[in-house]
Amino acid sequence: MSSLLIESTRSGHVESVHHVSVAVVDASGALVASAGDPERQSMWRSAAKPFQSLPLVRDGAADRYGFGTRELALSCASHSSEPVHREVCAGMLKATGCEESRLACGPHPPLSQAVADEALRQGTPLTPRWSNCSGKHAGMLALAKHHGWHTEGYERAGHPVQERILDEVAHWTGVERGALVQAVDGCTAVCFGLPLRAMALAYARFGVSELDAARRLREAMWAHPELVAGTGRLCTELMAVGRGGVLAKVGAEGIYSAAVPALGLGLSLKVEDGDARCSPPALLEVLRQVLARYEGRVSVPMEGLGHHVEPLQRNTRGAVTGSLRAVGGLRFT
Amino acid sequence: MSSLLIESTRSGHVESVHHVSVAVVDASGALVASAGDPERQSMWRSAAKPFQSLPLVRDGAADRYGFGTRELALSCASHSSEPVHREVCAGMLKATGCEESRLACGPHPPLSQAVADEALRQGTPLTPRWSNCSGKHAGMLALAKHHGWHTEGYERAGHPVQERILDEVAHWTGVERGALVQAVDGCTAVCFGLPLRAMALAYARFGVSELDAARRLREAMWAHPELVAGTGRLCTELMAVGRGGVLAKVGAEGIYSAAVPALGLGLSLKVEDGDARCSPPALLEVLRQVLARYEGRVSVPMEGLGHHVEPLQRNTRGAVTGSLRAVGGLRFT
Repeated sequence: MSSLLIESTRSGHVESVHHVSVAVVDASGALVASAGDPERQSMWRSAAKPFQSLPLVRDGAADRYGFGTRELALSCASHSSEPVHREVCAGMLKATGCEESRLACGPHPPLSQAVADEALRQGTPLTPRWSNCSGKHAGMLALAKHHGWHTEGYERAGHPVQERILDEVAHWTGVERGALVQAVDGCTAVCFGLPLRAMALAYARFGVSELDAARRLREAMWAHPELVAGTGRLCTELMAVGRGGVLAKVGAEGIYSAAVPALGLGLSLKVEDGDARCSPPALLEVLRQVLARYEGRVSVPMEGLGHHVEPLQRNTRGAVTGSLRAVGGLRFT
Repeated sequence: MSSLLIESTRSGHVESVHHVSVAVVDASGALVASAGDPERQSMWRSAAKPFQSLPLVRDGAADRYGFGTRELALSCASHSSEPVHREVCAGMLKATGCEESRLACGPHPPLSQAVADEALRQGTPLTPRWSNCSGKHAGMLALAKHHGWHTEGYERAGHPVQERILDEVAHWTGVERGALVQAVDGCTAVCFGLPLRAMALAYARFGVSELDAARRLREAMWAHPELVAGTGRLCTELMAVGRGGVLAKVGAEGIYSAAVPALGLGLSLKVEDGDARCSPPALLEVLRQVLARYEGRVSVPMEGLGHHVEPLQRNTRGAVTGSLRAVGGLRFT
């Protein structure tokens, strides 16, 4: 078993260690590379969002409500609650005729510390559209309205919205509906438990799919990477500099999934202990090793991402005390 | 090798896993129980504070400046920046004739979310005494003034204050000065890298020491557990209900050290990935297993700590989605 670690250092010494499991597969499902346990069952969390958004496009709800690339990007987002994110969400709700109070996602401190601090300073109430998942939820409401389903309980297992999404997730991951674990996500919607390898397969397929809905969601995420995450975050910066080379989506508890369409590959990784600080350097190390293996076949611009490759850690006076750094290699099969 | 895990669950499924290394020793240094790697080298971080405070008492600085049990408790604290913590620190600075600006610790968002939010709401500037380590730093300044050492750079390796503390740490841990790693802590002061087993030995000795300074620091921590951490935190609640049965001190990056004086034992644990949420349930599980082993020999009250034994995790609507729970056992030798 090959291992990939993220080491946290202090004054040049390793202080803490994070183990990472990785699966890299091609669109046929063949395992191309791995680390740790590529069959590890995990919650997909927000890295499932493109697949949770597919029914919105495939079933015609997006067209009906006039959702363009901005709305589709936000439906796939774990956003930072910046003004633009809240505005696009408000527009989606308005187009579908839903009050904000219909959103089942609860508010939480924004992922952007600057936005969170500003809201506290101003005493601004955090309403549901401030949730990092509000675009996904607005999309789910649109799907319910489009089909004439009741909106009450749209976020819960068994509701037609979630049944429709379950079909879609089963289709792309190759995992039978009955074998997909359905759990409750931080935003109250259903989240899915499945092997890393199956998540990677879904991304491999999604990255090269000729299905119109998949193409539209991919292009929406690439057109508006700032809507998929937010200022300074890896999903946003990687897709902004990568110019269509990589499609990447983070999830809570150390999850990251990505597609490299030019290589026909998908990948998914899980930081075993769930540390969210470690999934960005882990993703970039996996991409670096995969791209090195296929040197010459594809070029993915990744300049300017050094602060995500080895994030620095500082003390309370701002001095650098250490960093997070990837150690170890993928095993190519 | 025995293993102790903290599992993070979601809807009844294990989502993330944290490995914990543990050393339990008696005052002679004999290993009584362990999990993972009890010889693991780690940063002691704030769990070293009682030993960093010993010179303050032993050298007469505490008496000279009129530090009572409150000041000694705060010197051992990683406090939550509550008003009482800031007040006691201000009093220590006043007694030693130091301006607050002499504190080398930088400010940071208070460990108490309520205090942090209130400061932001009110626009209160976070000055150095808001640092969770401000009591330790005020004690270091007092030590420098008492000895007539310059206060500039008191926090850095090589300064007489840190040399004096290094002697003390070497004495209690049984690790030679030259073998103790000196690194930079989050508060800018020196922190020490050494094996878990040596940290545990220091606590075993400290818990039963007849040295007046050790007794005074122990009794100060037990007399004012609310000053050692803060509202709702495990160090505070455990020492408040434990009535002298356990002396416990948390450190950053998943460290916890404790003494059970009635059994003559000390222990230290490290959550391998540094997750701060996991060290409280890990400590309570280690204590539970140790006390069960010595059933009848000692009774340590631990009622009302269930929320630390299995901390619940909630989604953004406040519904419980899972918990952190300890799995696995110590190996008794």
